[in-house]
Amino acid sequence: MAILKGNAVVGQSGGPTAAINATLAGVIRGALDAKNQGTIDTLYGMKNGIEGFLAEKLVDLTKFFADENDIATLELTPAAALGSCRKKMKSPEDDPETYETIFKIFKKYNIRYFFYIGGNDSMDTVMKLSKYASDHDYEMRVIGVPKTVDNDLMVTDHTPGFGSAAKYVAVSMKEILRDVSVYTTKAVTIVEIMGRDAGWLTAASGLTRLSGGISPDLIYLPEVSFDPEEFLASITEIQKDHPAVLVAVSEGIKFEDGRYVGEGLGGRKIDAFGHVALSGAGKVLEELVKERIGCKVRSIELNLPQRCAAHLASLTDVNESVGVGRAAVEAGVCGKTGVMMTINRVKSDDYSVYYDSADISGIANGVKGVPTEYINSDGNGITDECVKYLAPLILGEVQPVYENGLPKHIVI
Amino acid sequence: MAILKGNAVVGQSGGPTAAINATLAGVIRGALDAKNQGTIDTLYGMKNGIEGFLAEKLVDLTKFFADENDIATLELTPAAALGSCRKKMKSPEDDPETYETIFKIFKKYNIRYFFYIGGNDSMDTVMKLSKYASDHDYEMRVIGVPKTVDNDLMVTDHTPGFGSAAKYVAVSMKEILRDVSVYTTKAVTIVEIMGRDAGWLTAASGLTRLSGGISPDLIYLPEVSFDPEEFLASITEIQKDHPAVLVAVSEGIKFEDGRYVGEGLGGRKIDAFGHVALSGAGKVLEELVKERIGCKVRSIELNLPQRCAAHLASLTDVNESVGVGRAAVEAGVCGKTGVMMTINRVKSDDYSVYYDSADISGIANGVKGVPTEYINSDGNGITDECVKYLAPLILGEVQPVYENGLPKHIVI
Repeated sequence: MAILKGNAVVGQSGGPTAAINATLAGVIRGALDAKNQGTIDTLYGMKNGIEGFLAEKLVDLTKFFADENDIATLELTPAAALGSCRKKMKSPEDDPETYETIFKIFKKYNIRYFFYIGGNDSMDTVMKLSKYASDHDYEMRVIGVPKTVDNDLMVTDHTPGFGSAAKYVAVSMKEILRDVSVYTTKAVTIVEIMGRDAGWLTAASGLTRLSGGISPDLIYLPEVSFDPEEFLASITEIQKDHPAVLVAVSEGIKFEDGRYVGEGLGGRKIDAFGHVALSGAGKVLEELVKERIGCKVRSIELNLPQRCAAHLASLTDVNESVGVGRAAVEAGVCGKTGVMMTINRVKSDDYSVYYDSADISGIANGVKGVPTEYINSDGNGITDECVKYLAPLILGEVQPVYENGLPKHIVI
Repeated sequence: MAILKGNAVVGQSGGPTAAINATLAGVIRGALDAKNQGTIDTLYGMKNGIEGFLAEKLVDLTKFFADENDIATLELTPAAALGSCRKKMKSPEDDPETYETIFKIFKKYNIRYFFYIGGNDSMDTVMKLSKYASDHDYEMRVIGVPKTVDNDLMVTDHTPGFGSAAKYVAVSMKEILRDVSVYTTKAVTIVEIMGRDAGWLTAASGLTRLSGGISPDLIYLPEVSFDPEEFLASITEIQKDHPAVLVAVSEGIKFEDGRYVGEGLGGRKIDAFGHVALSGAGKVLEELVKERIGCKVRSIELNLPQRCAAHLASLTDVNESVGVGRAAVEAGVCGKTGVMMTINRVKSDDYSVYYDSADISGIANGVKGVPTEYINSDGNGITDECVKYLAPLILGEVQPVYENGLPKHIVI
């Protein structure tokens, strides 16, 4: 493989996570290494993903991050420091102009390395650009670096960003459990957790059991169809043992007929991506419990803090996010293109991982749900095997620098 | 003042906070000191406040917390470790039996010291019990120790528990600001913060400005009546400058006619205390923005984590919460009764406090709102004076012990 000299560009896309900037920091560190080795000269950052790139909104990250301290701050800054977009690219046949513009900019800046940090839609962009480059004989390396709090990307053992979100969910759940357990009156608390199609984050609420043996009483994932009558019966049964029932539900849980619970009684709303817009499984179940059981009930939507609470990031996740970003640059330099970086778990008792890459075509647009063996037979909890898979991902605490009582962030 | 020998009891009441157990830890430490000095022998804990006390649910805390490590863990365990209740006591005239039962138990256990950690309703209990004791010649010291995330108690400069909730709000707001700033499309994010009658916690969202000069764009407190048209006009104006508008609102904001914004179009609901039950100022404003401005809009209710996210407690708050608990025991030993402990700020450039006590009758049932000079002239933001008051309260970070990636708690 001949050495490919030139410049590189990196972008972030899709919903932010607490660790997507850690991956950006990894790419920056990798690019600085590559600069020393004489392959990559300048690393550009595209503002607001491919949308900003089309408008030539580029920032010289090699210059911007000349100070190592700034890279360290970036690692613990939540959300996409380069800005993001939610663009799903059309095929070159349907939209040739966009591709021509992109490649004109590639040539103008001699960009030979393209790193795109994102989820499913972003991997689709990587697939299309790498194919277009090869079809048009433009030598370049197009590499996707995964990120999503949903943990639903194929092939990789888990995705950067998930461990931090999972830690936020598990810690919050443990704290909420303390809070709701103080009264002697019957009460139901329903915590709605992110996850439209995959229940990984909601499953992470069950990690609470590792600490004190207490877990949410009921955990409902989108992988199992939701039966309201069984739900109500379970609550009544649990309240015979203790008054405060804690329930974790995925935003994406569905009735047996395929309708989202969060749709409630209203009609179906569709967003720009053709996804159904949900308005609160927790709220719908809160009303149900109020009507049918009549005890005190509260629903809590953990909402954005799940994906941006960088102060509580998992150290394991942050370290891996940096690692996989750095590995992406190495993979590019070594000639990989049209791939997504993966995190692979070493099969042994002690948790450890290595980074690799996999052909993008087997990844883009697929969804990896929580497997059956991770869900208990009643469909309302997780198994020990699931706990074993999840537990290492939330280990370790970050130590952000605080100024005036607030964690320090960097803004590009 | 003659030395009063005997036993002591401590209880927790009202809504939990992240620091109410720190105060309990302070009372325990104070009682251990008093034991060494030969005044207080055993410190009992009442389970579920005065309700549990009436059922003689007592636990020997002197024994339970023989290990100093457990007291340290208690300091960083959120929510009331002794359990709580929401009992507003009737007067002895209206309910003589309850008072007779309570004092029978006092005599049975030779309880001469009564420490009650709570908010407004709890201070009312302290007032009634201390008066009853003195009216019936039972020598005892009845002392209230404040706690409330609302910071709305009279006389004290601020209340234990508030600083931690304020830190949670400010840090979350800063993280959410990062998250919502990644897109280039117009969007409004409305964060609903606890505070029914007083806007202290919502004001704390403005501390974000201390770090990077960015603040929520608009901050609405219950102290100022809410004008929907001005709100919509402000958003339109702000979006001329930047697309992502971040708004902080108190759950208790009211229209000019006195109706809660959170009541929306529905009727008024009243809870057991005669308080109006609110169902989301954020949701109501979300709908308003959707209808009238039409851009992307999301409302976030910070909900219970505001008061139970002990992993992010303010070190200043935790230290003061312990300090005021300890000071309560000292005040009792020194002969104080019918008082609430207070935190007093030393008037100087450097922040420091001392603990004192104040007659309970001037405190119970009063509400201290955010003063006019802390609110900007447009009624949609806070002044520098407000920032100066709030800033020291969120300083410092706690270092909880983590096990399996989760903070360690203690359960009594």
